[in-house]
Amino acid sequence: MAVATTQSLEELCINSIRFLAVDAVEKAKSGHPGLPMGAAPMAFVLWDQFMRFNPKNPKWFNRDRFILSAGHGCMLQYALLYLTGYDSVTIDDIKSFRQWGSSTPGHPENFETLGVEVTTGPLGQGIANGVGLAVAEAHLAAKFNKPDLTLVDHYTYVILGDGCNMEGVSGEACSIAGHWGLGKLIALYDDNHISIDGSTDVAFTEDVSKRFEAYGWHVLHVENGNTDLVAIAKAIEEAKAVTDKPTMIKVTTTIGYGAPNKQNTAGIHGAALGTDEIAATRANLNWNYEPFVVPEDALGHMRKAVERGAGYEAEWEKTWAQYKTKYPQEAAEFERLISGKLPDGWDSVLPTYTPEDKALATRKHSETCLNKLAPVLTELIGGSADLTHSNLTEIKGFGDFQKGAYANRNIHFGVREHGMGAICNGIALHGSGLIPYGATFLIFTDYMRAAIRLSALSQAGTIWVMTHDSIGQGEDGPTHQPVETLASLRAIPNLTVIRPADGTECSGAYKVAITNAKQNAPTLLAFSRQNLPNLAGTSMEGVAKGAYAIVDCDGTPDLILIGTGSEVSLCVEAASKLTAEGKKVRVVSMPSWELFEAQDAAYKESVLPKAVTKRVAVEAGTSFGWSKYLGTEGDSVSIDRFGASAPGGVCMEKFGFTVDNVLAKAKAVLG
Amino acid sequence: MAVATTQSLEELCINSIRFLAVDAVEKAKSGHPGLPMGAAPMAFVLWDQFMRFNPKNPKWFNRDRFILSAGHGCMLQYALLYLTGYDSVTIDDIKSFRQWGSSTPGHPENFETLGVEVTTGPLGQGIANGVGLAVAEAHLAAKFNKPDLTLVDHYTYVILGDGCNMEGVSGEACSIAGHWGLGKLIALYDDNHISIDGSTDVAFTEDVSKRFEAYGWHVLHVENGNTDLVAIAKAIEEAKAVTDKPTMIKVTTTIGYGAPNKQNTAGIHGAALGTDEIAATRANLNWNYEPFVVPEDALGHMRKAVERGAGYEAEWEKTWAQYKTKYPQEAAEFERLISGKLPDGWDSVLPTYTPEDKALATRKHSETCLNKLAPVLTELIGGSADLTHSNLTEIKGFGDFQKGAYANRNIHFGVREHGMGAICNGIALHGSGLIPYGATFLIFTDYMRAAIRLSALSQAGTIWVMTHDSIGQGEDGPTHQPVETLASLRAIPNLTVIRPADGTECSGAYKVAITNAKQNAPTLLAFSRQNLPNLAGTSMEGVAKGAYAIVDCDGTPDLILIGTGSEVSLCVEAASKLTAEGKKVRVVSMPSWELFEAQDAAYKESVLPKAVTKRVAVEAGTSFGWSKYLGTEGDSVSIDRFGASAPGGVCMEKFGFTVDNVLAKAKAVLG
Repeated sequence: MAVATTQSLEELCINSIRFLAVDAVEKAKSGHPGLPMGAAPMAFVLWDQFMRFNPKNPKWFNRDRFILSAGHGCMLQYALLYLTGYDSVTIDDIKSFRQWGSSTPGHPENFETLGVEVTTGPLGQGIANGVGLAVAEAHLAAKFNKPDLTLVDHYTYVILGDGCNMEGVSGEACSIAGHWGLGKLIALYDDNHISIDGSTDVAFTEDVSKRFEAYGWHVLHVENGNTDLVAIAKAIEEAKAVTDKPTMIKVTTTIGYGAPNKQNTAGIHGAALGTDEIAATRANLNWNYEPFVVPEDALGHMRKAVERGAGYEAEWEKTWAQYKTKYPQEAAEFERLISGKLPDGWDSVLPTYTPEDKALATRKHSETCLNKLAPVLTELIGGSADLTHSNLTEIKGFGDFQKGAYANRNIHFGVREHGMGAICNGIALHGSGLIPYGATFLIFTDYMRAAIRLSALSQAGTIWVMTHDSIGQGEDGPTHQPVETLASLRAIPNLTVIRPADGTECSGAYKVAITNAKQNAPTLLAFSRQNLPNLAGTSMEGVAKGAYAIVDCDGTPDLILIGTGSEVSLCVEAASKLTAEGKKVRVVSMPSWELFEAQDAAYKESVLPKAVTKRVAVEAGTSFGWSKYLGTEGDSVSIDRFGASAPGGVCMEKFGFTVDNVLAKAKAVLG
Repeated sequence: MAVATTQSLEELCINSIRFLAVDAVEKAKSGHPGLPMGAAPMAFVLWDQFMRFNPKNPKWFNRDRFILSAGHGCMLQYALLYLTGYDSVTIDDIKSFRQWGSSTPGHPENFETLGVEVTTGPLGQGIANGVGLAVAEAHLAAKFNKPDLTLVDHYTYVILGDGCNMEGVSGEACSIAGHWGLGKLIALYDDNHISIDGSTDVAFTEDVSKRFEAYGWHVLHVENGNTDLVAIAKAIEEAKAVTDKPTMIKVTTTIGYGAPNKQNTAGIHGAALGTDEIAATRANLNWNYEPFVVPEDALGHMRKAVERGAGYEAEWEKTWAQYKTKYPQEAAEFERLISGKLPDGWDSVLPTYTPEDKALATRKHSETCLNKLAPVLTELIGGSADLTHSNLTEIKGFGDFQKGAYANRNIHFGVREHGMGAICNGIALHGSGLIPYGATFLIFTDYMRAAIRLSALSQAGTIWVMTHDSIGQGEDGPTHQPVETLASLRAIPNLTVIRPADGTECSGAYKVAITNAKQNAPTLLAFSRQNLPNLAGTSMEGVAKGAYAIVDCDGTPDLILIGTGSEVSLCVEAASKLTAEGKKVRVVSMPSWELFEAQDAAYKESVLPKAVTKRVAVEAGTSFGWSKYLGTEGDSVSIDRFGASAPGGVCMEKFGFTVDNVLAKAKAVLG
């Protein structure tokens, strides 16, 4: 055993982190180790001297948030969780690094490991989520803190690498974070000059610090992040002292620090050290402990986090108790938010419509829903990527979320769809009951797809408000007209996509979306640009079931017309003509495939009986995927090519979204 | 009629541009006018004094490239094309702005309008495409120019707006452009402080110039872009004088310049001026011409571009003639490139394999194909977004494309998937025969989906090389494991997706991809991380047909097993067992849905006869879309949830991608 006196306690702790990672990676024999040899010192200083958290209550509300944006270095985080006493990561979990069923997957996953705040790995997402966490903190602090009682007060710390800094999504999020002046966001940039392809010299020679200064960040530099713990601590102190700007601390490190033959090479990034180099590294860093053994002094020191954490929480509980006494109304609201509960009767504000009501675009109904819900659901916060007045997402009377106006709830994301997505996910994953929504044109989900996918994977209850949902968009042309977009989103697991047909279905869609959000599930809403009639037979309950008959016949139908969104009314009109001709026709409005699939077999059979094989689906999008519902003899009115620039009505007509064409297809199917 | 002497000739020309746009927008009554009131002066100076192009031969090779990255201002470009004498845009086309079938769609589309280089509208793409055009120019110049003869020599000019500068994709592309030092890329930033949501103060207060300096760009500022034509010209001169850095000229303008009541407001961005304001603007700018009337002086001046253009081309033809004489070999190669032809027998280098050959990952076979093709196809240029040694995309012996080494062909894009995508599209759309390829993990197509879609829409013959194509990816876990990704890509019109099963099919896939590229069509290739056996019966011809039987039986099959990529071998093994049990089984390898759909009905029926309703599809991805091929009684071995972190083989087994599970499903289907 090594004699502890040969290393300082700090070194012992840091090397414990390093070698837990080395040993875990070696055991896993895994391809992308992300060894935290260079990042361990900054992480240690941060967790040991600055971070306020409670290992025994990982979800304690007022904890500082930590994000490892460079998620491939996840063993760093698992080592910290283990060493500081979280129950979610045991030494056995570390020995099962990257194995089936372990709490130590190959990238940090909030849904697998308590203590992990957000899911990282896809580079750039973590820092952008961090902006969202900081937005949530700033918003809640502005809303609930009182001059005499500070209820909400935590930092968001992010460690990010060169890869994160190359990704556009991080640039988008950091630009807007600078604009907002989020002083409690502190990013430590592990500046190690190496990415997978080798030295950053091959592709990344920009001046990152200067770029962050351009964004309006406070920028610091620690020149020797490998060993200068004092400088790291001093920088974090300075970062905290600047309260009106986020801080980026560039911490220059050596990748693979301590591995005598591999440090400062890309080899360390892409492969495990191997037996010989591990031995050499142990010798080099004077580390004589057996694999997975942490010296008692180190563990003892790190585990003090448990006591500290209990203290932080107790202190906060005191504040909270006083707060409840002095500000019972705000306290009740805060408590409701944190509990994840919805206020009683919240959905009663959602309007329903009759065919006599004016034809409106569903984006307009969405605006109504948002504005009806906003006063009731104080947790609703969001906005658009510079399309507020096209997406119609402003909640009136609730002001713009801006620097110094963090209690406001309308967020202007700028033309930054991807950043918006990741920021919304961060707001949701703050875990404080906030319901974020992010809006753009449906086609531009392509710009933010990685964030939408991550909302579904990482259980972020974000609402995606997408308007201009078809070629009915019109003049902007094929670059702005979704065709394959609905299919591509429906394919994402755990994402509920809803395309309502009219005002009542919009209300139904929001009811589902809000309910989902509180269950940590995202929903994507697709709304029309163009006006649509309000239909007889539509219902909020029908939307919740995904598909339902809105026009029906006696007995078994000869034909079922299935429509979604703006095309349901075409089906209704066609059905009316076919009925007049003596056909038995059912019209199924199918706003959501996912909700329909979640129903039991009996319900599904009742809506789409197997025996009725004559079916026509009508949707202003690709036919891709529709076969599932079309039976053996079905067909669809679809568009399997890109659109064109022309007024929306012309596009719809030219591409066959007319009653006549639905009739023609129906008759062909009927034979 | 106004007296010309009240305005300078320049003002007449600039106002001609402005009012063509005003009149076209008014006539179209379209929602998103993008009036170029502020951008017209810079565009005029650029086209009038600097740009070398030939209106009567828009595809003249050595033309300067112009991109309107702020594509919503497309009337600017249409006005310029009309005024300078392109045949593609007549005054009638301008009167049909944004109408069905016109050459003046709502955003610039290279496939609709000769003279438009790339398709813009989705913000940030244009400037990133511009980086690609500049890469193509630098590469070809380095390759073909001789000390005594300069064959390739043009600038790439881009006008971009605040929106483009907010998008992450532009940040990614501009960072790498700075790294590469692309001196012939000159971007004019229309700094008008307004985006759709209003003043950029609401979301965009970063110091853009400083950011570009951080990227390594040469940055200039024209303070009065509305009227100071001399300053604009001087800045462009200065930009051209700096040859080792791209230049960003911030041109401060007033949005809606000249409209007395609407200039400098967001209103000008989102809606037409309206009758009254048009009248006021005409009065204000002293414009007394009828709608769509261009004063003769202006038209006469602008049309001089035709003569100038003929001169530029004639001059270049002289160089070219000399070049052909002095450097016949290089000239022949240049000529072949420009012609879009492939060299005879190019595909003979692609290897085929037998089952005795070693099992290898298809990404490894992809590496072989790329390296076999690279010496034969000198137009092949590309690389990876920092995953070169995982994607295996290095073409050995051809060096790294870097500043001062532009003749090299391995491009390191850094961790910038979206930027890579748009840059590759720009290289393809340079129209010089280059075949770009861009690589990352299949899952990260989500980061670059907008660029992939644009390759399909705008007819860019890019090859997308995507590896780690399933949960077989393994330990990196669900953030890195594609599940819904293949479906989401297959849904994109005009994109051919190919997922080969073994070495021979990889060769077949590259044969298709290269052929497609020369026909301006993109192809996305999906390769495995893990080793796969080489199968009997696979063929390059089979790949070209999309689907084909690789195991067959006598007579009508009882069952068809359909596999793609890594799962085809499971089908073969399962078929072997079922055959031993007396079943008649066909195995169809289906590397590409799109290629199969392009076959005639007879071929399709021969592979998947309607009469055979017992079918099982096996693909390590979502079942989404497979219904189309599964008949009434089919089923699939699929994964309709996110993956998990564990060794690839364990993931495959746990999620049911085993011979036993295929057998079980097959037997269930057979009944």
